Amino acid sequence: MSLLKRSVGRSPGDAMALALAEARAAAARGDVPVGALVLDPAGAVLAAAGNRVEADADPTAHAEILALRAAAARLGTPRLVGCTLVVTLEPCAMCAQAAALARVDRLVFGAYDPKGGGVEHGARVFERATCHHRPAVVGGVRESAAADLLRAFFRDRR
Amino acid sequence: MSLLKRSVGRSPGDAMALALAEARAAAARGDVPVGALVLDPAGAVLAAAGNRVEADADPTAHAEILALRAAAARLGTPRLVGCTLVVTLEPCAMCAQAAALARVDRLVFGAYDPKGGGVEHGARVFERATCHHRPAVVGGVRESAAADLLRAFFRDRR
Repeated sequence: MSLLKRSVGRSPGDAMALALAEARAAAARGDVPVGALVLDPAGAVLAAAGNRVEADADPTAHAEILALRAAAARLGTPRLVGCTLVVTLEPCAMCAQAAALARVDRLVFGAYDPKGGGVEHGARVFERATCHHRPAVVGGVRESAAADLLRAFFRDRR
Repeated sequence: MSLLKRSVGRSPGDAMALALAEARAAAARGDVPVGALVLDPAGAVLAAAGNRVEADADPTAHAEILALRAAAARLGTPRLVGCTLVVTLEPCAMCAQAAALARVDRLVFGAYDPKGGGVEHGARVFERATCHHRPAVVGGVRESAAADLLRAFFRDRR
């Protein structure tokens, strides 16, 4: 909860440091290490979450979904206009479409995910005519830190 | 909750009648009328939900997401092996990917959604190499009933 009180300004790198902390916390509880934040239009942290699929036995509990839901609950609206979603890994199609439905202004992500991503790979959700809101996308922010966490997690579980 | 106690056997049409009832309940509270169920491998209803995006101020609260989450909570696992997701409208990319992540065996949907669907339109989530589990898909079950509900909802709000 202490994360929620910090303002990270408008630097994607600063916000990503907090998202990486959420990813490390996810790994510590046995979940794939991915972390996400939602920043309000001024850059303050509205919500922070790590992946909780295993911890919560919830197939939809990706970090992005949890952060979007928490931010919407905090604002009392399903539309996060002017907000930024920051996540350590390229979102899958579920999370990319959720960001579009939530109408976030911007998506900032860390590592690219050729095997499961849905923004720059696979479904390429934002590029489809069925996507009615397209956030601006900045990928590759601190990507090696995010990728290292994932590699270490899967190596330790082998 | 009374819906949860009923078993609908294996007929997609019977299950769709219950999903349509959830869709009507969604419309009655001001949400876009879409309803969904998760059936266990024997065809009993594990979870039923209607769209609650506006009611809950949650951008991810599509009927499918709510039904998948409730079914997973009930079974205590994020993996709904052998289960069927029944929904009145072709799922968007978020919900299609959620069904894949939840590893449901089968997706049964009502109306096709050329403007927002992510199964037979747009992102075509299940057709991508980034999709690691592909449910069998049956579309068009009682499609005119589902489409009529949506048309009436949007006509009344104009």
